[in-house]
Amino acid sequence: MVGAGSAVVNTYPLSSYTFGTKEPKMEKDTSVADRLARMKVNYMKEGMRTSVEAILLVQEHNHPHILLLQIGNTFCKLPGGRLKPGENEIEGLKRKLTSKLGANSPALVPDWQIGECVATWWRPNFETIMYPYCPPHITKPKECKKLYLVHLSEREYFAVPKNLKLLAVPLFELYDNVQRYGPVISTIPQQLSRFQFNMITT
Amino acid sequence: MVGAGSAVVNTYPLSSYTFGTKEPKMEKDTSVADRLARMKVNYMKEGMRTSVEAILLVQEHNHPHILLLQIGNTFCKLPGGRLKPGENEIEGLKRKLTSKLGANSPALVPDWQIGECVATWWRPNFETIMYPYCPPHITKPKECKKLYLVHLSEREYFAVPKNLKLLAVPLFELYDNVQRYGPVISTIPQQLSRFQFNMITT
Repeated sequence: MVGAGSAVVNTYPLSSYTFGTKEPKMEKDTSVADRLARMKVNYMKEGMRTSVEAILLVQEHNHPHILLLQIGNTFCKLPGGRLKPGENEIEGLKRKLTSKLGANSPALVPDWQIGECVATWWRPNFETIMYPYCPPHITKPKECKKLYLVHLSEREYFAVPKNLKLLAVPLFELYDNVQRYGPVISTIPQQLSRFQFNMITT
Repeated sequence: MVGAGSAVVNTYPLSSYTFGTKEPKMEKDTSVADRLARMKVNYMKEGMRTSVEAILLVQEHNHPHILLLQIGNTFCKLPGGRLKPGENEIEGLKRKLTSKLGANSPALVPDWQIGECVATWWRPNFETIMYPYCPPHITKPKECKKLYLVHLSEREYFAVPKNLKLLAVPLFELYDNVQRYGPVISTIPQQLSRFQFNMITT
């Protein structure tokens, strides 16, 4: 049984991080239909897709913010992606974070500290809708997506692909905003509410 | 840093629990306005209200269900309530659970195993709206409500006050159903999604 005290998470000011750019990382699919079709092909070859995504926290004005990658002018996503078949979740998430946000020079890549799993989402069919549980009577879900808290150090360098923007979005902007951020990202504030944020101002 | 494996929660069939009745537990307030007014009076005397609520899990048809107390024909709430000034959260939740669901005979009262804190909600003003974070610029929140997972044993006896009904509501009924269950209860599925349910059929 886990103790009842709240877990404490240190967050540092956005200004303590450095952001550069690197070569573009293009999306593999140009439409939702393409994406679902590719998912189906991969499912036939490899079975259920497992994906991992990272919640990177910073603070501004004494309020927690989450780093999101913006594609074009609207769609936002968490950094992360699909695991290779049999790949360990933690190692896979580190690989994806380095691919999405790490500098090309290995010495500058953050030592990713993967923390608590905060949510799991299930895709029952080759459709966009996901649920925070495997729905009854679904014996072969098509995807399982896990969100992990990643503990950033006081200083980090992030290299953002040129076709993407990295945004620091406050929890109060995400909360109850399913229209803009979708069901997965808009409920991150609820999933983080059990943590006590130690907002360090340096 | 917490390890990355999912926490496992054992759930037992609803049919393995026994339900009796006891004397009614009347609500202290007959309207929302009364409730907010009483909150204000108490705040003047005791400062911020801290309340604790329990998520009691059972399983049916291989899907997790949550026990909710229904008042009248519509309003549902989690068992729990307000702590006394200075009272320990865990002890206070046990006291509240015994008051709400424990038999009058102490020998029949469950040995409440209070587990993980899964959510924290803040009430910035003497109003009904709560947030899963303390909103920026709010230095004196009026209430902090914490939800704890309570680990039930294989067999328990619950005594339900005669004016209330105890319902086992499936996660899929709560999910995305803010209209019926409100923002706190309707996002419990997301908050529980990080757990792996070991659904025991006995």
